[in-house]
Amino acid sequence: MATNKDIEDLIKIISKLPGLGPKSAKRIVLKLINNRETLTKPLVNTLAQVYKNVIRCKICGNLKSANADCTCANKKYEQICVVENIADMWVIESSGIYKGHYHILGGTLPFSESKKDNGLLITSLIDRVKKNSVKEVILATSATVEGQTTAHYIQDSLKDLKVKISKLAQGLPVGGEIEFLDDGTLFSAFKNRGPVAGD
Amino acid sequence: MATNKDIEDLIKIISKLPGLGPKSAKRIVLKLINNRETLTKPLVNTLAQVYKNVIRCKICGNLKSANADCTCANKKYEQICVVENIADMWVIESSGIYKGHYHILGGTLPFSESKKDNGLLITSLIDRVKKNSVKEVILATSATVEGQTTAHYIQDSLKDLKVKISKLAQGLPVGGEIEFLDDGTLFSAFKNRGPVAGD
Repeated sequence: MATNKDIEDLIKIISKLPGLGPKSAKRIVLKLINNRETLTKPLVNTLAQVYKNVIRCKICGNLKSANADCTCANKKYEQICVVENIADMWVIESSGIYKGHYHILGGTLPFSESKKDNGLLITSLIDRVKKNSVKEVILATSATVEGQTTAHYIQDSLKDLKVKISKLAQGLPVGGEIEFLDDGTLFSAFKNRGPVAGD
Repeated sequence: MATNKDIEDLIKIISKLPGLGPKSAKRIVLKLINNRETLTKPLVNTLAQVYKNVIRCKICGNLKSANADCTCANKKYEQICVVENIADMWVIESSGIYKGHYHILGGTLPFSESKKDNGLLITSLIDRVKKNSVKEVILATSATVEGQTTAHYIQDSLKDLKVKISKLAQGLPVGGEIEFLDDGTLFSAFKNRGPVAGD
């Protein structure tokens, strides 16, 4: 199709990105070719920068610079908001409801084998709670079966520690995923959060 | 929004690409972060390769490797298909109707000042026709006012040379742009091309 192998490769890779296909990838490549200095160059540089420099913290799961300490190493915080993934954190951050520290699990436990850790950052959450004498853990996992199973498992893992565990409550529509909620719904869910009762 | 300045920059740049906005850019960046080795790395490399290595030929307007001769330097061809831009060439190439050489003008003449060259590769087209003893120039500009004005101007510029000038004819819907035609329409337009009569 395209004259040049590099161009073909680029179209192939770009069409793998979410929401894009071969046609939209071609349009993007044309735009890049026609805007070498104003678009392609900054994109190459920033992308290379992100690839080299942005990694996930092995403790809190958040993104951090490769050669700097993560903000989770800062000991002065009393709350941790536990979320499934970065997209969830971003949507909570942009709503402005909560401005504290996060813990990004990296997914959910599968419903069927609820007692396996599954590569999630749960052990490190327990360590963080212990080390930093955290006073409240806010479980902000999605209102799906997997999200709630995960929340329950974490609640169970933390039960011997002197920490208040809250869970987002009213406002979450059943089956709804945090990532796609509007700010209003999120706000009431944060505002009405309650301590975990016997459950 | 995002924790990291590099990430913010990347989202900003990606949302400038055609068809994308801040939300889809964020989804793409998340996908890139979660697939560093399988997606981000190849994308950085290919993009850098295209940025460094792919330039436009100053003679025929097509894309070429920075350190190799363009295919238009090959003297053995009898036909040149003149198109407005690379997207037009790609759609003709992928239809399989025409497999010869192209000449990419880089746009159209504005309707109002039809006698100005406007940075289009028209002089180099005349040179190519002379040097390579081309027998047919196929004008495959869009059926818009600008496309037809441009075709007419080129036809005028070539009139003193012994070269057959054809123009895509039946099949092009009035106001249609080459880039968005289906193969069938393109096929009949190519098949029914005729020599330019008195006009």
